[in-house]
Amino acid sequence: MDFVSVKKKGKMPKLNNPILIEGLPGIGNVGKLAVEHLIDTIDAKKFAEIYSKDFPPQVFINPDGTVELVKNEFYYWKAEKENQRDLVLLTGDYQGLSSRGQYELVEKILNVCEELDVKELYTLGGYGLGHDISKPKVLCATTHKTLVKEMKKHGAVFKKNEPGGGIVGASGLLLGLGKLRKLKGICFMGETPGYLVDPKSAKAVLKILMSITNIKVDLSALEDKAKEIEQIAQQLKEMESGSGEKSEDLKYIG
Amino acid sequence: MDFVSVKKKGKMPKLNNPILIEGLPGIGNVGKLAVEHLIDTIDAKKFAEIYSKDFPPQVFINPDGTVELVKNEFYYWKAEKENQRDLVLLTGDYQGLSSRGQYELVEKILNVCEELDVKELYTLGGYGLGHDISKPKVLCATTHKTLVKEMKKHGAVFKKNEPGGGIVGASGLLLGLGKLRKLKGICFMGETPGYLVDPKSAKAVLKILMSITNIKVDLSALEDKAKEIEQIAQQLKEMESGSGEKSEDLKYIG
Amino acid sequence: MDFVSVKKKGKMPKLNNPILIEGLPGIGNVGKLAVEHLIDTIDAKKFAEIYSKDFPPQVFINPDGTVELVKNEFYYWKAEKENQRDLVLLTGDYQGLSSRGQYELVEKILNVCEELDVKELYTLGGYGLGHDISKPKVLCATTHKTLVKEMKKHGAVFKKNEPGGGIVGASGLLLGLGKLRKLKGICFMGETPGYLVDPKSAKAVLKILMSITNIKVDLSALEDKAKEIEQIAQQLKEMESGSGEKSEDLKYIG
Amino acid sequence: MDFVSVKKKGKMPKLNNPILIEGLPGIGNVGKLAVEHLIDTIDAKKFAEIYSKDFPPQVFINPDGTVELVKNEFYYWKAEKENQRDLVLLTGDYQGLSSRGQYELVEKILNVCEELDVKELYTLGGYGLGHDISKPKVLCATTHKTLVKEMKKHGAVFKKNEPGGGIVGASGLLLGLGKLRKLKGICFMGETPGYLVDPKSAKAVLKILMSITNIKVDLSALEDKAKEIEQIAQQLKEMESGSGEKSEDLKYIG
Repeated sequence: MDFVSVKKKGKMPKLNNPILIEGLPGIGNVGKLAVEHLIDTIDAKKFAEIYSKDFPPQVFINPDGTVELVKNEFYYWKAEKENQRDLVLLTGDYQGLSSRGQYELVEKILNVCEELDVKELYTLGGYGLGHDISKPKVLCATTHKTLVKEMKKHGAVFKKNEPGGGIVGASGLLLGLGKLRKLKGICFMGETPGYLVDPKSAKAVLKILMSITNIKVDLSALEDKAKEIEQIAQQLKEMESGSGEKSEDLKYIG
Repeated sequence: MDFVSVKKKGKMPKLNNPILIEGLPGIGNVGKLAVEHLIDTIDAKKFAEIYSKDFPPQVFINPDGTVELVKNEFYYWKAEKENQRDLVLLTGDYQGLSSRGQYELVEKILNVCEELDVKELYTLGGYGLGHDISKPKVLCATTHKTLVKEMKKHGAVFKKNEPGGGIVGASGLLLGLGKLRKLKGICFMGETPGYLVDPKSAKAVLKILMSITNIKVDLSALEDKAKEIEQIAQQLKEMESGSGEKSEDLKYIG
Repeated sequence: MDFVSVKKKGKMPKLNNPILIEGLPGIGNVGKLAVEHLIDTIDAKKFAEIYSKDFPPQVFINPDGTVELVKNEFYYWKAEKENQRDLVLLTGDYQGLSSRGQYELVEKILNVCEELDVKELYTLGGYGLGHDISKPKVLCATTHKTLVKEMKKHGAVFKKNEPGGGIVGASGLLLGLGKLRKLKGICFMGETPGYLVDPKSAKAVLKILMSITNIKVDLSALEDKAKEIEQIAQQLKEMESGSGEKSEDLKYIG
Repeated sequence: MDFVSVKKKGKMPKLNNPILIEGLPGIGNVGKLAVEHLIDTIDAKKFAEIYSKDFPPQVFINPDGTVELVKNEFYYWKAEKENQRDLVLLTGDYQGLSSRGQYELVEKILNVCEELDVKELYTLGGYGLGHDISKPKVLCATTHKTLVKEMKKHGAVFKKNEPGGGIVGASGLLLGLGKLRKLKGICFMGETPGYLVDPKSAKAVLKILMSITNIKVDLSALEDKAKEIEQIAQQLKEMESGSGEKSEDLKYIG
């Protein structure tokens, strides 16, 4: 096994002018939530897995008691209408742990993309605000200037010098290394408090993606998850403010 | 020397349909205690050592003043009865320090297994509870669904979604990477508080292994060690509760 | 892509007896500020980029919304007068993150230098004092004893056993590894408090470099930046001493 | 340049049945002090240097203002009397920073040893006690049982199970990896408080080495350094006990 290895399940799919949509774990797990929801809803098919010696040395346990080596997974979906394009979807358990691991993972992903004749990359992630947000906007960055205009039409937001720290991880690196290979790339970053997994932000990201891909996706499952998370967030706040009141009480007493 | 290298002592043993039993250092040292006890009791023979540049740069000192480079060790044992199978046993001083080191160590172990025609892997470890446990159960996870039923018969426990964090280290990776090579694998995790080395948990793991392998192992030495450890644990608790009383006394005085 | 790779833009420039001037991020960002100012002012041309798997897995975002993979950049400038020499300039976003990454980055830089027939290396950095300094001196260290005398003539300062910790990073390594390749090297370290980016120290370093290269550079932009930073430093001090007074007040009250 | 590279100065020396004496930085810098003193006193000649990408990316500055890449250094010395043996001496600025770096450094050292037909390795280090010691003993560990008896004759001490943590770093690894190459090895560990560099402990180690090698070394310079260090240690203690008294005084007052 190489440092990073791609394991294909049978033949590679034959796709027509496909685009990649990537969503790996990250801030608020926005990208991963979005791509996993998309895979489930459109019933995409798995065609390859990626293993890496830079992932943690770990297996997860399935509900039936069997184990699963940590990995990334490639899926594909074939367009059903004239105005749609074939999709390659990537999600997974981890990103690389080290810089080198991140670069080599992304290079293997790009190799698969080139093999499938993917020329456009959409990478999804979260943009951590550190505070609550009622209507998360979706920030965007692209490899080419012409794409900026195009993405604005679909509702993506460009803020000068944001994110100030750039984009760290696979979502950024796919664009950076993809650009060197003459690929087009677009990164969507859903605004998120960043404390908890954030299905609301994932939904905002998917909405733009639906507009671009002309694929209709039922978002109700994400909405349900978002309500759950909001309740948890509310409970955490009450616990905090509860203890806050106590400490104020104590001030009066003490 | 490669990053991980196997050093064989003479010819490799010729074994008949052998199974691997692995126990490297980990939580409560459960796996290592179990396999070392097994090796000593059945008088298994060493046939190879593994060195790794990802082990600490360290030698241990033998009682006679000579040094020993840190390593993993392979032993074998030939079945003595009809209903037994030949064993390959693996234990050692360390697991790999880094992710890459873990993956490469496990790949070398699997190479040796394939050379010896091992098709079934039993990996032993601890499952840290963070609290005392009088009768440690033995949790289990396997590579194949059919093995789940089989292992339940021998008393292994499957709890849905446990361990929640999966299995980290060689015990998990042997199953994960072994599955990719079409090997069967079973991981036994003895429940343990996880604070001290835990011969009681190692004993629980060995009992199941005895049932599977039809090998009778005298467990009295492990039981003696378990009593020692329980006394130490008791003393530690008394010291804690002792100081606890003192600090309460001080409250009354101060 | 190699661990460190050089990507050339078209043909390599043909230079006449050029010198390298390096300024990568470091203490007070002195070296980077100096070389970037030089590149802008003399209008040097980019001819190559360096990417490394030991840089962070990151893209930065340009003001126009496009992304830029983190990198180092090579520029050149052709002498305009008899008493000047052609320049190769190196700056960038990061140095290598690990020891190995630093060594391999510097080796690639030296490879490019040898390809361009560079025989003299000037490396620029900061010397952190941990306290304010009104007139920063420029410390110096060289690969060869004859260069010590020469550099003193241009105003560089040699203090016995300073910096006591030697020179860490690309500025030191270029000299150390360059010396093994029979290259001459000079490191200029501008004194700096080291808390903030320090254009004043960068200016001091550039003044010596102007004397050596006979290139006149307008330093007013650096001076403006230096004033800005001094104001920020002043504000930070006032905030500190302000809160100091408050806490003293509190002592009187409490 | 390889990950670790040996750079020879001209031809390799022709030595007659030589032994290696190694002393790299470590606890109390005992080994490095001892070997450096030996090199200076017997006027050994440098014949090779080792560079490593796992050393810090750093140059040190010589008193004359020139730089020196961090490295390890090989010296040799030819026997002057019948009862002496030729020496290969190794010291340096650093050991490898990572496990892999340590293993690869030691392998390169052993390669040089084999090239010079060295069959016996003496490695020197400190044994940190964590408390003062008036007459430091010299603990010993060896690759072969026969060497234990031999070393006891020269005054080396073997304590069962000490050091309990084995020997970490080049001094241990040279024995561990050397043993795999059928080389004999002896490690001397001078007892030391371990807080400061310890010339007294280095002297104790050298005394045994003098007995073994039949080389007389003037130890007065080490003794002078030892007195200096003892004064510093004394001053540090007085400072501590001074503040200790104060805090006791405060108890009476407060």
